[in-house]
Amino acid sequence: MIIRIDRLGVELPPPSDPDPAGAQAVQELLGGKFGEMSTFMNYTYQSFNFRSRQGARPFYDLVASIAAEEFGHIELVATTINTMLTGAGAAEPGGGALGDVKSTRNTQQFIAGGAAALVQDSMGKPWNGDYVFSSGDLIEDLTHNFFLETGARNNKLKVYEMVTHPAARALTGYLLVRGGVHQVAYARAVEKLTGADLTKMFPSPRIPTDKIPECRPHIERGDHLRLYRFSPDDYKEIVAVFNGPHPETGEDLTVIDHAPEGFPPVDLPPEPDVFAPDYAPEEIAQIARKLREAAGLPKEPTGVVAANGGNGSAAGKVEAR
Amino acid sequence: MIIRIDRLGVELPPPSDPDPAGAQAVQELLGGKFGEMSTFMNYTYQSFNFRSRQGARPFYDLVASIAAEEFGHIELVATTINTMLTGAGAAEPGGGALGDVKSTRNTQQFIAGGAAALVQDSMGKPWNGDYVFSSGDLIEDLTHNFFLETGARNNKLKVYEMVTHPAARALTGYLLVRGGVHQVAYARAVEKLTGADLTKMFPSPRIPTDKIPECRPHIERGDHLRLYRFSPDDYKEIVAVFNGPHPETGEDLTVIDHAPEGFPPVDLPPEPDVFAPDYAPEEIAQIARKLREAAGLPKEPTGVVAANGGNGSAAGKVEAR
Amino acid sequence: MIIRIDRLGVELPPPSDPDPAGAQAVQELLGGKFGEMSTFMNYTYQSFNFRSRQGARPFYDLVASIAAEEFGHIELVATTINTMLTGAGAAEPGGGALGDVKSTRNTQQFIAGGAAALVQDSMGKPWNGDYVFSSGDLIEDLTHNFFLETGARNNKLKVYEMVTHPAARALTGYLLVRGGVHQVAYARAVEKLTGADLTKMFPSPRIPTDKIPECRPHIERGDHLRLYRFSPDDYKEIVAVFNGPHPETGEDLTVIDHAPEGFPPVDLPPEPDVFAPDYAPEEIAQIARKLREAAGLPKEPTGVVAANGGNGSAAGKVEAR
Amino acid sequence: MIIRIDRLGVELPPPSDPDPAGAQAVQELLGGKFGEMSTFMNYTYQSFNFRSRQGARPFYDLVASIAAEEFGHIELVATTINTMLTGAGAAEPGGGALGDVKSTRNTQQFIAGGAAALVQDSMGKPWNGDYVFSSGDLIEDLTHNFFLETGARNNKLKVYEMVTHPAARALTGYLLVRGGVHQVAYARAVEKLTGADLTKMFPSPRIPTDKIPECRPHIERGDHLRLYRFSPDDYKEIVAVFNGPHPETGEDLTVIDHAPEGFPPVDLPPEPDVFAPDYAPEEIAQIARKLREAAGLPKEPTGVVAANGGNGSAAGKVEAR
Amino acid sequence: MIIRIDRLGVELPPPSDPDPAGAQAVQELLGGKFGEMSTFMNYTYQSFNFRSRQGARPFYDLVASIAAEEFGHIELVATTINTMLTGAGAAEPGGGALGDVKSTRNTQQFIAGGAAALVQDSMGKPWNGDYVFSSGDLIEDLTHNFFLETGARNNKLKVYEMVTHPAARALTGYLLVRGGVHQVAYARAVEKLTGADLTKMFPSPRIPTDKIPECRPHIERGDHLRLYRFSPDDYKEIVAVFNGPHPETGEDLTVIDHAPEGFPPVDLPPEPDVFAPDYAPEEIAQIARKLREAAGLPKEPTGVVAANGGNGSAAGKVEAR
Amino acid sequence: MIIRIDRLGVELPPPSDPDPAGAQAVQELLGGKFGEMSTFMNYTYQSFNFRSRQGARPFYDLVASIAAEEFGHIELVATTINTMLTGAGAAEPGGGALGDVKSTRNTQQFIAGGAAALVQDSMGKPWNGDYVFSSGDLIEDLTHNFFLETGARNNKLKVYEMVTHPAARALTGYLLVRGGVHQVAYARAVEKLTGADLTKMFPSPRIPTDKIPECRPHIERGDHLRLYRFSPDDYKEIVAVFNGPHPETGEDLTVIDHAPEGFPPVDLPPEPDVFAPDYAPEEIAQIARKLREAAGLPKEPTGVVAANGGNGSAAGKVEAR
Repeated sequence: MIIRIDRLGVELPPPSDPDPAGAQAVQELLGGKFGEMSTFMNYTYQSFNFRSRQGARPFYDLVASIAAEEFGHIELVATTINTMLTGAGAAEPGGGALGDVKSTRNTQQFIAGGAAALVQDSMGKPWNGDYVFSSGDLIEDLTHNFFLETGARNNKLKVYEMVTHPAARALTGYLLVRGGVHQVAYARAVEKLTGADLTKMFPSPRIPTDKIPECRPHIERGDHLRLYRFSPDDYKEIVAVFNGPHPETGEDLTVIDHAPEGFPPVDLPPEPDVFAPDYAPEEIAQIARKLREAAGLPKEPTGVVAANGGNGSAAGKVEAR
Repeated sequence: MIIRIDRLGVELPPPSDPDPAGAQAVQELLGGKFGEMSTFMNYTYQSFNFRSRQGARPFYDLVASIAAEEFGHIELVATTINTMLTGAGAAEPGGGALGDVKSTRNTQQFIAGGAAALVQDSMGKPWNGDYVFSSGDLIEDLTHNFFLETGARNNKLKVYEMVTHPAARALTGYLLVRGGVHQVAYARAVEKLTGADLTKMFPSPRIPTDKIPECRPHIERGDHLRLYRFSPDDYKEIVAVFNGPHPETGEDLTVIDHAPEGFPPVDLPPEPDVFAPDYAPEEIAQIARKLREAAGLPKEPTGVVAANGGNGSAAGKVEAR
Repeated sequence: MIIRIDRLGVELPPPSDPDPAGAQAVQELLGGKFGEMSTFMNYTYQSFNFRSRQGARPFYDLVASIAAEEFGHIELVATTINTMLTGAGAAEPGGGALGDVKSTRNTQQFIAGGAAALVQDSMGKPWNGDYVFSSGDLIEDLTHNFFLETGARNNKLKVYEMVTHPAARALTGYLLVRGGVHQVAYARAVEKLTGADLTKMFPSPRIPTDKIPECRPHIERGDHLRLYRFSPDDYKEIVAVFNGPHPETGEDLTVIDHAPEGFPPVDLPPEPDVFAPDYAPEEIAQIARKLREAAGLPKEPTGVVAANGGNGSAAGKVEAR
Repeated sequence: MIIRIDRLGVELPPPSDPDPAGAQAVQELLGGKFGEMSTFMNYTYQSFNFRSRQGARPFYDLVASIAAEEFGHIELVATTINTMLTGAGAAEPGGGALGDVKSTRNTQQFIAGGAAALVQDSMGKPWNGDYVFSSGDLIEDLTHNFFLETGARNNKLKVYEMVTHPAARALTGYLLVRGGVHQVAYARAVEKLTGADLTKMFPSPRIPTDKIPECRPHIERGDHLRLYRFSPDDYKEIVAVFNGPHPETGEDLTVIDHAPEGFPPVDLPPEPDVFAPDYAPEEIAQIARKLREAAGLPKEPTGVVAANGGNGSAAGKVEAR
Repeated sequence: MIIRIDRLGVELPPPSDPDPAGAQAVQELLGGKFGEMSTFMNYTYQSFNFRSRQGARPFYDLVASIAAEEFGHIELVATTINTMLTGAGAAEPGGGALGDVKSTRNTQQFIAGGAAALVQDSMGKPWNGDYVFSSGDLIEDLTHNFFLETGARNNKLKVYEMVTHPAARALTGYLLVRGGVHQVAYARAVEKLTGADLTKMFPSPRIPTDKIPECRPHIERGDHLRLYRFSPDDYKEIVAVFNGPHPETGEDLTVIDHAPEGFPPVDLPPEPDVFAPDYAPEEIAQIARKLREAAGLPKEPTGVVAANGGNGSAAGKVEAR
Repeated sequence: MIIRIDRLGVELPPPSDPDPAGAQAVQELLGGKFGEMSTFMNYTYQSFNFRSRQGARPFYDLVASIAAEEFGHIELVATTINTMLTGAGAAEPGGGALGDVKSTRNTQQFIAGGAAALVQDSMGKPWNGDYVFSSGDLIEDLTHNFFLETGARNNKLKVYEMVTHPAARALTGYLLVRGGVHQVAYARAVEKLTGADLTKMFPSPRIPTDKIPECRPHIERGDHLRLYRFSPDDYKEIVAVFNGPHPETGEDLTVIDHAPEGFPPVDLPPEPDVFAPDYAPEEIAQIARKLREAAGLPKEPTGVVAANGGNGSAAGKVEAR
């Protein structure tokens, strides 16, 4: 079971200039073979399918807890895409209301979705369940996970170089650091079981994380060393695996005994041209106010959201339309 | 973000007689178009992609919280399949160690997996991201969700009639009740927004849930009326939507202000023939003990698991091999 | 545009002993690469995409008219499958109501469908639009069609040898004859355009159609020589292509200037265990009666259906349950 | 069985400026999950798989007759795409004959096809048979159909806003009106069976059809109220379901007791650069003339086609090359 | 470029009792994610896509040469499947000529194929090009290859345990030894580039190859230590990578400076029921004889094939039909 | 088994101006339904699955030997794509290092690959094993192959007209000639078996090969008449099939009793931005030098590569960065 917290793992900027081509590249980090759906689902199913958990508890705990962090990563990539698509459809004079995205690489983000993320890769191919490797063989699964994180790091670095939109950069800067921690965790796990020193393969690809400016703030606050325990009472044995020196910096790896606090999301503005959440969003808002009142809830929405970046932001611009 | 709790939503029986054909039928409830991967991922992405959350808060909260419950459902279906596959490979004399499953419907549960669930449907087709409907149009998304739950109920009823294995029956009995609650929730949401009274369509399919013996205990403790709020501090406005009479019984719908407590899972025995977690599981266990010790953890595994059903169970039999 | 006639191209027997394994083999003739969906859709899209129709009218007419006949073929294969699945779920004592099909090759015929055909091949793989070849190059399209019909004939012959159920035999006997006519038609069309004498390749595969007992009645009434014009006023120029001697028998090919009359379908009995058309079909029937009355229609249904084979048939048995 | 009439449901303009990017967006309405292939095939297979037709005749008739109309819709979308692609390949000086479409979104429209429609969606993903929902459960199938038409309307509205090419606008204007009628028909059918008043959900998406200029002519001649009976003698009981007031306008719904007359298609010019129908179309035409003569047919092609828009049209320009 | 030699890498037994269920399991080793199509195509495309070959020559040579050996492996798996399917269709009295395989797991081996291998996995899912990992990053590609060989070894071990047919056992015994050599080769390559000692992960899965009786003859003749150079003049630098002790036995690894000699294949008998190579194979043979004569070739076929196992073999039996 | 020769079938130019859109179009010739993967794999599997080889030896030899040539064709297409992608990512000022390809049609060529070919078609859809037709019926397989080569020729002609990059033109010029020979070979084979004169269908499409300037040099040296025997000792009976006059020119067809010599490939420069072969390629080169030395190999790489086109070429430019 899970409990959900309406916070993001990292602060993402509000919408600014839309970048649909960039958003399509970022989709690779969501639904690609090495995207976050893959890390999330691989570790999740490996934990579901884990036999003899008591006998191999520290490894079960490691996989199960990292799985929980990965949910937060699909959330972040989807939010980044949605941020980048905000305002993209707005038409040039003489065109239809979606004239600007007629030639966009992923028309379904607008036709099937409401200027929003799809569960697809950067070529529009849907993520599928055969991307999940769950052999049950612990050493093999952990080796796979190390390799998966390596491939994921490769893809993040390339998307970083491809897309300069501030939301994409904030995303990749954060994911590179957190993915790096998972890469270390699985390398350590394989080493504990076999003696093979995978840490010599770091960094892989051979470009150090601290060369990326957007990674540095996370490194400076030590997030490249920390594995969070994403559970109030379970997964306590991850400390038995995640310890020792960081392969690149030599600093001590640490387990943080709870999940990070997170940041409230920006409330992305409506996109009436794609009916999100409606052609006339105010009607929905009015119904919502009445329902809230009838249920004895406060007059104002109880949800916590980030300030949307002020009047100068695209969100502001879109709302002003 | 999510926090994970190592508990199952319902108590599942320990392994008994293996039923690989039945397990393959149950896969439809995991990776089928109307399986739990679909409900989990549809609501999850609809919540990620939700625009103007503050303006439509009660609906956002509803979708986001139900999404969290659905994670527990994929966990349950996977566990059921794993339970049913336990002991299935054991060979007849003269055959190989996996001779018994040479003709099984899903050979990949044993070749790709370790006698375990795959992210596939009952035909071996992987779940894919295009099963996610997330148009952004709130009324349309909620209508879809109502229809999705209806299709899911249809499939659960059929798998119930197809598979009599105790684990499958415990699963379907529980899922029918919980899925029924979600069906009601989305029907109410559509009604609040449009006035269309979908509750007249209950039960759909036209077979009342309380006719299923395995549903009755859950109905008797009132679980057909309760929507849990799967968050410590968020999603407080679901009460604004989930209220009024149950469409079939007329009893009052209620929101429970926290997640259910759950049940510890059975620790499924190793299957060395498929290397899960290893060809010689004891070696892993020994390494785990040393790591635990080195980390200053208790000698015994800290994880909580259910009693495995005693010596008479298949789990016991498998361990005895 | 099309006009629909509620008749089948050939008389199919009523349900008898169910044969779900056979029905799954027959699916190849529906949704396989060389199945009737492929012939129907290939010719249909070739006709939609046909450029310079006036300049190449006889060929356009040929493709467009054969496309129309193929609709009747998907109808026949689906009906055959439905006939063969009727009564298949009925459980052995102690099992669930669908216990008999737990190990069936295509569980989705019962879980997704109502004991019914799916748009899939014999392996459960859905038919897809990339099976359509429509290059626009007339010679190439016609060569493709000749090859497609040859592959289709191959598959029909094999399914004939694999499945002895009376409905499957009635189907394949008929389709072999009609598909043979199309094979001839495309061979003639290629010859008219290039001079290449493809008729020397008949029969392909090298087994004469008249060796199949179920083909003989159709051959005896001359249906192996006739191309029907499936339109009241269009496609008049097919006579310019479909003429000359039959490649195997030397008899004259003829164009029939209208569609065949057809046969009313058997009204397949309800399968309440899979909710087709409902868990309690009589309720639907009652509503239908009222609606009919309110609309001033006759008391009895106006549809024409075949006698269902009497009390001894499976349809009768199923209804008696 | 079907009979085919070589007419289009609505008049489409002749080729003008090519718009390959727009044509690729329009593909969503052909091969997308909510495209016309889906509506055509869903209703067609539901009618094939319909059990107890006599008991539920008015509903069978409704689904079967609407299925027939949908054939005309795939024909229209394909024709629109072909119209928009006409002349698109023409090269800039110095480039190859297809240089202009090197960067087009769907290269296969030119490489696999002859500047023509493919059975794919706007991302180049082929339509597939698993888009067909045919559960056999009548209420569920009809609910699905209502939802499918709603999704289809959503997609049509978005393509309308994305693509301003005159052929695309003529298409979407017509399809929005006809799809709206089907949406009403299925809503009424569900209401008749369950009492749930789905008409309160209209319009869905919440943008009235009569706000679309290209819909208005069809509304003015009353086509938003009419369901055609696409059969000479069958499907007579649709009147028992399709009646009462239109959910948006309150006007009376009517059944027209035959199919509409239709319009002859424009004969799209050859595209020799993609060999459609040949590298040297005149050679084909010459052969055709001889065959026609040999068969005793008139000297001029017997097919009826629309005037192609005169010398100023792209068709004219292309022919002039 | 390649040159082809009509020999198999290992001697395979002639057909004996058919085993279609076993043959379907063996398909996983052909078209599965970890099958031989994957090893063949991964290394082949990595060699095609290799940048800066001169700078990294020993690694290029290693990958390119192993790729060539893998062609021989797809050949072996296909041949094994064909051997196991020989004679499978033969019908029971009263059934059709293919009655025995109506319920086989892969009907397409008989309907699409001629009792023959398909490019699919054990679930009938076709191999696809996205199974190829070719990142261009040398360390990552080699790590992938090590992991791929590990997964392949896992799958071979399981198929070995699942299928006891003599052809399957001969195949898996051989492939386990040869795949083991490739696993070592890639581990050494990674070590050379990074210093990480992957040899500590052997054997993986943790079951020693020499425990498999069918592997022992190959080990005894030293084939577990040898990497063959599959080229007359190229790939000479593999010796720079493939050297040092075998991770399990400590014996010296050696490069053999040419390809192995190989064994002539059994000439599998015709299967006229599936038209392979024809309904009347003797007709083909007769034409062949004439063509041979006309071309001045010897009277007897020039091809070299193995003795087919004598009169007692299934091949003999089938021929006797 | 195969032996590999590190030579290309035709000389390809070194990298010049990158052309990622063109490279994506060329992918159709690699992984498309009618691409070289299809010809390679179709003939390869038909040879693996060939029953009664001795009885039909000339035909077996023909298919098996042509299969070997096709390996060289996938190599050529991949090399062409890699050549065209070289230097494509280089960013504009202010963008990321891959900023130039953010909007490229196939982002995975850079994210999944190292500016390299993928096993996909021009729409990014992976090649899959169901493109292989291997019915076992010899006449049908050969007819298929003729049709496949016809479709391949169609696609090559269109890519030729779409892409003017020198590498693409060199490729298509060569493939059109070689594919033409295969088309003739299969036409002759069908004729030998059935008497049907398919040579009347040449050229298909109806545009003569010698109209393509890039084909002429190959025609002038007679390569349109030659079938190479790709084996030292096998496949000697192809002469029994491949003989007689060329269908277009009337010249004599000839079998060359060995494979062509080939040309050394250009060593494509590293692309450090996509880590191919590394972020710092010199480090790899240094390790390679040491390994070469330790193995007693010459100081300079032993591989033979073409001169890379001098300082003025893109390869030179990229290396200069």
